[in-house]
Amino acid sequence: MKLSQAYIPTQKEIPSDAVIPSHQLMIRAGLVRPLAAGIYTYLPLGWRVMRKAIDIIREEMDAIGGQELLMPMLNPIEIWDETGRNRDFGDEMFRLKDRKNRALNLAPTHEEVICDLARKFVNSYKDLPQIWYQIQTKFRDEPRPRSGVLRTRQFIMKDSYTLDVDQEALNTGYDLHAKAYHSIFRRCGLRYVVVGAASGLMGGSGSQEFMAESDAGEDTLILCEQCGYAANTEVAESTIEPLETAASAALEKVATPGAYTIEEVAAFLQREKKELIKTLVYIRQPETPVMILLRGDHDLNENKLQTLLGHVIRPAHPNEIKQICGADAGSVGPVGVSQKLTILADNAIRDQKNMVAGANENDYHVTGVDIGRDAAVDTFADLRNASSGDACIQCGAPLIMTNAIELGHIFKLGTKYSESMGATYLDEHGKDRSIVMGSYGIGVERIVASFIEQNNDDNGIIWNYALAPYAVHIIPVNYGDEDIRECADALYRGFAGRSVAALLDDRQVSPGFKFKDADLLGLPLQVIIGKKSLAQGKVELKHRNTCTSELIDAGEAVVKITAIIEQESTQ
Amino acid sequence: MKLSQAYIPTQKEIPSDAVIPSHQLMIRAGLVRPLAAGIYTYLPLGWRVMRKAIDIIREEMDAIGGQELLMPMLNPIEIWDETGRNRDFGDEMFRLKDRKNRALNLAPTHEEVICDLARKFVNSYKDLPQIWYQIQTKFRDEPRPRSGVLRTRQFIMKDSYTLDVDQEALNTGYDLHAKAYHSIFRRCGLRYVVVGAASGLMGGSGSQEFMAESDAGEDTLILCEQCGYAANTEVAESTIEPLETAASAALEKVATPGAYTIEEVAAFLQREKKELIKTLVYIRQPETPVMILLRGDHDLNENKLQTLLGHVIRPAHPNEIKQICGADAGSVGPVGVSQKLTILADNAIRDQKNMVAGANENDYHVTGVDIGRDAAVDTFADLRNASSGDACIQCGAPLIMTNAIELGHIFKLGTKYSESMGATYLDEHGKDRSIVMGSYGIGVERIVASFIEQNNDDNGIIWNYALAPYAVHIIPVNYGDEDIRECADALYRGFAGRSVAALLDDRQVSPGFKFKDADLLGLPLQVIIGKKSLAQGKVELKHRNTCTSELIDAGEAVVKITAIIEQESTQ
Repeated sequence: MKLSQAYIPTQKEIPSDAVIPSHQLMIRAGLVRPLAAGIYTYLPLGWRVMRKAIDIIREEMDAIGGQELLMPMLNPIEIWDETGRNRDFGDEMFRLKDRKNRALNLAPTHEEVICDLARKFVNSYKDLPQIWYQIQTKFRDEPRPRSGVLRTRQFIMKDSYTLDVDQEALNTGYDLHAKAYHSIFRRCGLRYVVVGAASGLMGGSGSQEFMAESDAGEDTLILCEQCGYAANTEVAESTIEPLETAASAALEKVATPGAYTIEEVAAFLQREKKELIKTLVYIRQPETPVMILLRGDHDLNENKLQTLLGHVIRPAHPNEIKQICGADAGSVGPVGVSQKLTILADNAIRDQKNMVAGANENDYHVTGVDIGRDAAVDTFADLRNASSGDACIQCGAPLIMTNAIELGHIFKLGTKYSESMGATYLDEHGKDRSIVMGSYGIGVERIVASFIEQNNDDNGIIWNYALAPYAVHIIPVNYGDEDIRECADALYRGFAGRSVAALLDDRQVSPGFKFKDADLLGLPLQVIIGKKSLAQGKVELKHRNTCTSELIDAGEAVVKITAIIEQESTQ
Repeated sequence: MKLSQAYIPTQKEIPSDAVIPSHQLMIRAGLVRPLAAGIYTYLPLGWRVMRKAIDIIREEMDAIGGQELLMPMLNPIEIWDETGRNRDFGDEMFRLKDRKNRALNLAPTHEEVICDLARKFVNSYKDLPQIWYQIQTKFRDEPRPRSGVLRTRQFIMKDSYTLDVDQEALNTGYDLHAKAYHSIFRRCGLRYVVVGAASGLMGGSGSQEFMAESDAGEDTLILCEQCGYAANTEVAESTIEPLETAASAALEKVATPGAYTIEEVAAFLQREKKELIKTLVYIRQPETPVMILLRGDHDLNENKLQTLLGHVIRPAHPNEIKQICGADAGSVGPVGVSQKLTILADNAIRDQKNMVAGANENDYHVTGVDIGRDAAVDTFADLRNASSGDACIQCGAPLIMTNAIELGHIFKLGTKYSESMGATYLDEHGKDRSIVMGSYGIGVERIVASFIEQNNDDNGIIWNYALAPYAVHIIPVNYGDEDIRECADALYRGFAGRSVAALLDDRQVSPGFKFKDADLLGLPLQVIIGKKSLAQGKVELKHRNTCTSELIDAGEAVVKITAIIEQESTQ
């Protein structure tokens, strides 16, 4: 492609709303442009990168026996009612009506359509296993679209689904996907880790995430550098030193006027935060209240709570708390709570004595609380966030926290969807059984943005060959000069003849302007054709990643560079 | 692919709602499945065919310098208000609200997004020309989705857009597209014609359609077999013999009780239909009434009327007709119409005398009408449908009518969109000018369905190599037989090694069942491996298109068949 004809609108200015490097660089290098909040156009250069990622995904999915298909983005809402996810997705799902007032939605994922296909057109165990995948636009009405293409309202996803006869067969399909995902992310040149993760709205019996290490990531991982334990904080477990056993004490109601937060109460009573009981009230949808107890210095992990309750949850509203406990949040606790309700407590406060809790009366707390004696705890469980410095549950070494971008997520769904939608098969004995399903996603934009997050410098992007939109950037310092132009054109033709994707900067602009654009676009190799070196039959070959240059014979440039690309591409 | 592992749900039954062959065969051969009205899933086999068509389109668009990008399907409605098309598209556009109650739509086409991109990121004449294209799902809320994938509510379209400095440059981009379209449809093996067409909601100064000849088509073409004139009936012109000049007569009001239609009035007055004036009332939106006069045996061409009026039109409601003319439809006419209104008349009634028209009084007509003397016609124009038997405007030969499927449509838009959205460039003299645009579409499903319409027999589809999902169908009559299985597997491996896409029917079903499925799927070549012929070292090679068979050496089958495919693919 000749730059004079290409539509690659580069810009020096950093867009005011772009905080993270990938967002800034994708705008500045002319890869994408926003049309509305969380909605982007992929310009030609950006779309070339996306297509290279898509091709890699397709090859690896085909390699594990995946069959590509394409499911509709417009779905009849009825199939989403069958699984209850029309409700569960809430405002995150785009809904609309057609001209006959029939309710439709834009699919945020495709388990429902898969089950509908399967129940209609899969009959027997002989039709299984199946691996179906598609690479397609998904729609989610994010409350806060942000970080460029990392969190948008329409995005391209590879989603695949396995249909199997039983759990063992599901495990096989799941493992095949893990293998394919490793190949995909490795080929794309990403630094990533695999972590245990929460299944969230997807449900099912287990899941893992493939996470790109990046400060720009919105996910937080808990890692053990000693034994390799790695998990999303959503599910990460840890062990902590139990508190020294305090002496038992009698219950005493004390006035704590104006002290409502853990910090305020600790300061007022001159106790440490960890000696307080943090009391929260949640509603297990639609209306069952649940009280949660944690140590004052710990934070609730909502995902663990949701998994424990097996249902959608939400924090109780202030008026609900008042009605349930007889006091406002900040003064509530497990002791003498009037209404009968389920009380769940984090493992860390089991057997603790002489603690402080709200008295269920505004501006009062109770001291001397003995959990075993005074709190009617129904269940102790791991309900807190693991955090940096906690001990690894596997080896005891201190854990560290790091940010990461979710690239892919693989789920063992089991029969959650097939049961609710009646997707069954006849087994060898003629008996109807629910199809056992898995679901697997990759965010294509996430691959591209994560790569840029991990591979850039002050001057721009640093592509590898796998994702680079072109491999070589030919830079004649003055395209108006006949010798230089002839050399540049000859190189351009030479690369075309060898199917090496090259960009030729044939614009009549200053060399400095060209060099800046070339570093910004970040193609792996630059061939700079200047008057002086060309007079000696040489051109300059610059490697974008190392920023090193060498002079090579102009006549051998095409052959030599093609060889370099072939060699480095297969590393 | 081995059929035992593939998801290709064939069926014998013709779906009850499928009328046309492509619809029936795409369901029966397991290419697609409906999810809802006008919404289809492409199953693996169907999606392979779609991807082959897409690859051909992509190659030819790249060959004319097109740059592929991807624009959002979710659009902010504001840009559609800027061009007035939020109104013009009416119920055909899907609209929705996001969680913040902002209005969005699903893009039915992308001129607005292109103009938004262009006004923000195209500055100078140096940035032009541009050819931008995408291959993407479009959404249109069709009032009557039908004919399988020919008229659906979401479909895949290649749409491209040219941005140019002036009309001459637009002509170049338009001609490049015409060339690319010819290559695409020729390579796909379609029989098609190019016709003049109406620009409709798209607007602009000219357009042409690429039409696949097919009885299943919803479009009607007017063709001259003598000189090659071809046009969609929307715009087709024709000449007709003028009526013999009747003698002038005096106006006379006559009672025509109960006679309202042309047929009824002609019968009642014992006159020929062509001696009557057909009077219609339309509303030029929002509220200007227009009266249209045609010869009684002619039909109004709404598209020609709309083009003449340069605006959206609709037939007047009965109460509007009553209010405007003082009588009901069936008794209205140009003579003595009370209210002042624009009267348009078809060229065919210019200078006609002694005709019959409604009297603008229920149950009365006027005879002796002399158009020049009695009807205050503002404009004579071509307003009627050309029809079979009319004379060609170019050569006078009789025209014929035929049905066809619209494959592609190319438009010279001019500055319609760039002016309304302010998409300008600075010319060489630093002056702001509107970008001159073209717009070009291809319906990918239309290629596939049209091909099937043109290439099928009683047993199934007859693919060519360009679109076939696989080139060869290997049919071991009994896969349980060791010799047969070994031969089948060897062929399968041999084809894989030569990158020939082959389907192996390794299922344990009867030979007859396999043969029926093979003819239904319609791959170009079938290799049948039977016990008897294999004992003599032979396999049977069957050509699906000619239904002819030959015995060939099993050991040479792979080489020979690969050669046949290479030779026939490049014809």
